[in-house]
Amino acid sequence: MSDTQHLSTGSKKPIFPDDGVLKLYSMRFCPYAHRVHLVLDAKNVPHHDTYINLREKPEWFLQVSSSSKVPALELVKEPGNPVLIESLIICDYLDEKYPEVPLYPKDPLKKAQEKILIERFGQFITAFYRLVLHENPAQLRDTDLYAGLDIYEEELGKRGTEFFGGSKPGMLDYMIWPWCERFASLKFSMGDGYELNPERFGSLLKWRDLMLQDRAVKCFYLDGQTHNKYMSSRRAGNADYNMLYNEAKRAKLE
Amino acid sequence: MSDTQHLSTGSKKPIFPDDGVLKLYSMRFCPYAHRVHLVLDAKNVPHHDTYINLREKPEWFLQVSSSSKVPALELVKEPGNPVLIESLIICDYLDEKYPEVPLYPKDPLKKAQEKILIERFGQFITAFYRLVLHENPAQLRDTDLYAGLDIYEEELGKRGTEFFGGSKPGMLDYMIWPWCERFASLKFSMGDGYELNPERFGSLLKWRDLMLQDRAVKCFYLDGQTHNKYMSSRRAGNADYNMLYNEAKRAKLE
Repeated sequence: MSDTQHLSTGSKKPIFPDDGVLKLYSMRFCPYAHRVHLVLDAKNVPHHDTYINLREKPEWFLQVSSSSKVPALELVKEPGNPVLIESLIICDYLDEKYPEVPLYPKDPLKKAQEKILIERFGQFITAFYRLVLHENPAQLRDTDLYAGLDIYEEELGKRGTEFFGGSKPGMLDYMIWPWCERFASLKFSMGDGYELNPERFGSLLKWRDLMLQDRAVKCFYLDGQTHNKYMSSRRAGNADYNMLYNEAKRAKLE
Repeated sequence: MSDTQHLSTGSKKPIFPDDGVLKLYSMRFCPYAHRVHLVLDAKNVPHHDTYINLREKPEWFLQVSSSSKVPALELVKEPGNPVLIESLIICDYLDEKYPEVPLYPKDPLKKAQEKILIERFGQFITAFYRLVLHENPAQLRDTDLYAGLDIYEEELGKRGTEFFGGSKPGMLDYMIWPWCERFASLKFSMGDGYELNPERFGSLLKWRDLMLQDRAVKCFYLDGQTHNKYMSSRRAGNADYNMLYNEAKRAKLE
């Protein structure tokens, strides 16, 4: 794994070899950037990663991407070094540009249905953040959180396959995974009740265990406790982007 | 043009011939549904239109589309009569399914760049609604409104083509058009100042005049005064969906 130091205001732009390899601008705990890492890794597309401190962005980053958002993908082989933004647009681009490991179904209707399911996952995402960013989450009801997963449980049961993509994860699997991985952080912040009920979510629980064995998922995986530690820092208004970098540095010194 | 009566609670589901033709569920003044009309008309794809009263939705509409949102496109030739929702997903589907009149560039990078420009138009859409739905719009500044158009003016100038799509409108042209058409309603609700400044928006003004001559745009066009009349009813909390239908009925009786 690459160096996860997040670069800040005043930093120098990192220099990578002139090798035509894609440059991904990311933040280690950003679930939208996570989507792009998953697709790049699933398709074995080499990439140089640069992590950005989103509170104190480097001046040079605004020149890379006018929106100064992550994820941003710089296509260094294309004339003018164009930069793509928006996780879903980047992932769709990667699926068209690197078709050797296709992630969408070929059939336009099936592809559109996958996109609708990716879009509808927004209900879960909204409920998830309402919970984890709330100062007093115990006051909130978690009804919306679980309701947002019901259609995926039903859909997976109906398909009868291991993954939404069939025998291998597809675009839908990877686009919803970042928040499913982070679900495991809830029991640390909210208490033991925050587990998926095996009676209600039998298919999704099996899916989760299979996803955890997927190579691309493993490449960028963090456990629930680590996600929770980052989310706690963010909730406290002091997002600790360099948490992993500093831990690794301390471990080296010891 | 089809009958624009909007069906309400208690209505019967309209029966169309068993001809395999797509069924589009729409609302005559909905800019998102407008996008789908434009793409269907640009591609000459036949469709049966059903207009829905969004405040008092027909009971049968919930069975057609579980989200009960418009636009919704029912694919009657496909097994199980699947229904697609979300304007951009529907339009992307139509572009893949009916490739004879392609609306996106073939090159994955250029396609992704069009999608980013479609996505970024959200800034204008947000500013537009903030203005037209505000009870006292005179209190608001319109800075964001014009700022949201600057990148399109610049982009069109850079491309040097008549349309964003080249010599014919493409997906970007059609996806932003519904709100550009509605821009002409502002001078009726807000006063004469709401015109695009020819010095700042020279390319976009030429583009607007050319778009107004496009066949697909003409098929579903309404003038600024009509859009304003509908928006006024919506602002007053009493969206007059059947405004055009009732006017046509009255005209017949006279």
